[in-house]
Amino acid sequence: MSAPIKNASQNVTSPGDMFTLENPVFCCYLFWATVLVVKMLLMSLLTAIQRFRYKIFPNEEDLFFKNLEVQFDDPHVERVRRAHRNDMENILPYFIMSLIYISTNPSAVIACNLFRVASVARIIHTLVYAVYPVPQPSRILAFATMLLITFYMAAIVALRTLSFI
Amino acid sequence: MSAPIKNASQNVTSPGDMFTLENPVFCCYLFWATVLVVKMLLMSLLTAIQRFRYKIFPNEEDLFFKNLEVQFDDPHVERVRRAHRNDMENILPYFIMSLIYISTNPSAVIACNLFRVASVARIIHTLVYAVYPVPQPSRILAFATMLLITFYMAAIVALRTLSFI
Amino acid sequence: MSAPIKNASQNVTSPGDMFTLENPVFCCYLFWATVLVVKMLLMSLLTAIQRFRYKIFPNEEDLFFKNLEVQFDDPHVERVRRAHRNDMENILPYFIMSLIYISTNPSAVIACNLFRVASVARIIHTLVYAVYPVPQPSRILAFATMLLITFYMAAIVALRTLSFI
Repeated sequence: MSAPIKNASQNVTSPGDMFTLENPVFCCYLFWATVLVVKMLLMSLLTAIQRFRYKIFPNEEDLFFKNLEVQFDDPHVERVRRAHRNDMENILPYFIMSLIYISTNPSAVIACNLFRVASVARIIHTLVYAVYPVPQPSRILAFATMLLITFYMAAIVALRTLSFI
Repeated sequence: MSAPIKNASQNVTSPGDMFTLENPVFCCYLFWATVLVVKMLLMSLLTAIQRFRYKIFPNEEDLFFKNLEVQFDDPHVERVRRAHRNDMENILPYFIMSLIYISTNPSAVIACNLFRVASVARIIHTLVYAVYPVPQPSRILAFATMLLITFYMAAIVALRTLSFI
Repeated sequence: MSAPIKNASQNVTSPGDMFTLENPVFCCYLFWATVLVVKMLLMSLLTAIQRFRYKIFPNEEDLFFKNLEVQFDDPHVERVRRAHRNDMENILPYFIMSLIYISTNPSAVIACNLFRVASVARIIHTLVYAVYPVPQPSRILAFATMLLITFYMAAIVALRTLSFI
């Protein structure tokens, strides 16, 4: 009779608990966002490897070998840099979009699989773009996968919050 | 007598509930952040449109037409890419800044209008930069609007958390 | 007898309260993330200063002086732009990584000091790269500091959420 009523906000399905380790959707986001962060940071190291392999450096203070001049247009280095820029253009907005998508309390099955597919697609994108170039449309398909998933999440969030325009 | 006391943490004004759909400021953030994510991703498609229109491709495997060579310095493509890079430089830090600004429990009227003005300003920035180039200072004003709003939010957050330096 | 039981989710150590001003780790994140956002936005202004000082503009509508043509490869401007791009490559993923790292409820001493060291390292990176170029390895060390801290946070988060792969 006097027992406290179970409070809805302590429920995983309540909006107040979305960003905690008790929410499996958030945990799945944590894992795959971490994978993508590491993948992105490895692009810097891949660029560095290419710079040392082909002895291409963009700054005077980076000329670690004798008789070198700064150089900017080496195709091996620029390919990795384009892949890295493409990551920033797509993965960084995805980080925000998928994070706020969690606040709409999506189905765990749908949300987790979207996180998995999008992340694996971007790993494939890097492999076919920067590591071992492969004929199209492999790169376009990998690119489009995360793009469409981000658009889907955007549609869900925008429809849910349309009255706050 | 035995009724459970209303718990402060279920209140929208409590710090614990900022990032839920019950907080109108967060909902407004969700809507406009989504708009900006979609706007940024459309820059990739706008770049692709320019690449196909002017047949300018940066990778060997992208040469979808006969007798083409890779090319990098087309002004129509580069203009869109500069606008896209400017988006990354400004909108991505704004996403984080405005998200954490919500945790300071700002006035809903101020916060929501800042989100609206900043987002519309960046849409205008894209229109006058990448879609239909317009004489200055239109682009500088659109650029400065989000910049100043982000600086304002930074000042609020930094003053509130200065003791944790 | 009828007093409501203290609910675990109102505890700072509970996963539900991580992203509130009651959590000192989150407050420390707020302060230093704000510092880095401001630092990044100042790169745009530093680029603008260099553009006006050396009269190097990339768009027709930006030619504020007579007898100028668009120009892209000035070393003073490009150095600042490379530093700015390096910020985007490293600080933006760090923002997400360190934000979600907070959800694992890390030790306040460790987490706060990681935030401080990473942020100061990136300020030094900007100084030795874009403001006053200094011989290596100063820039490499400043770069590696945030990189290793981000990898450490990634390891913590990934191990904690590995079962959600």
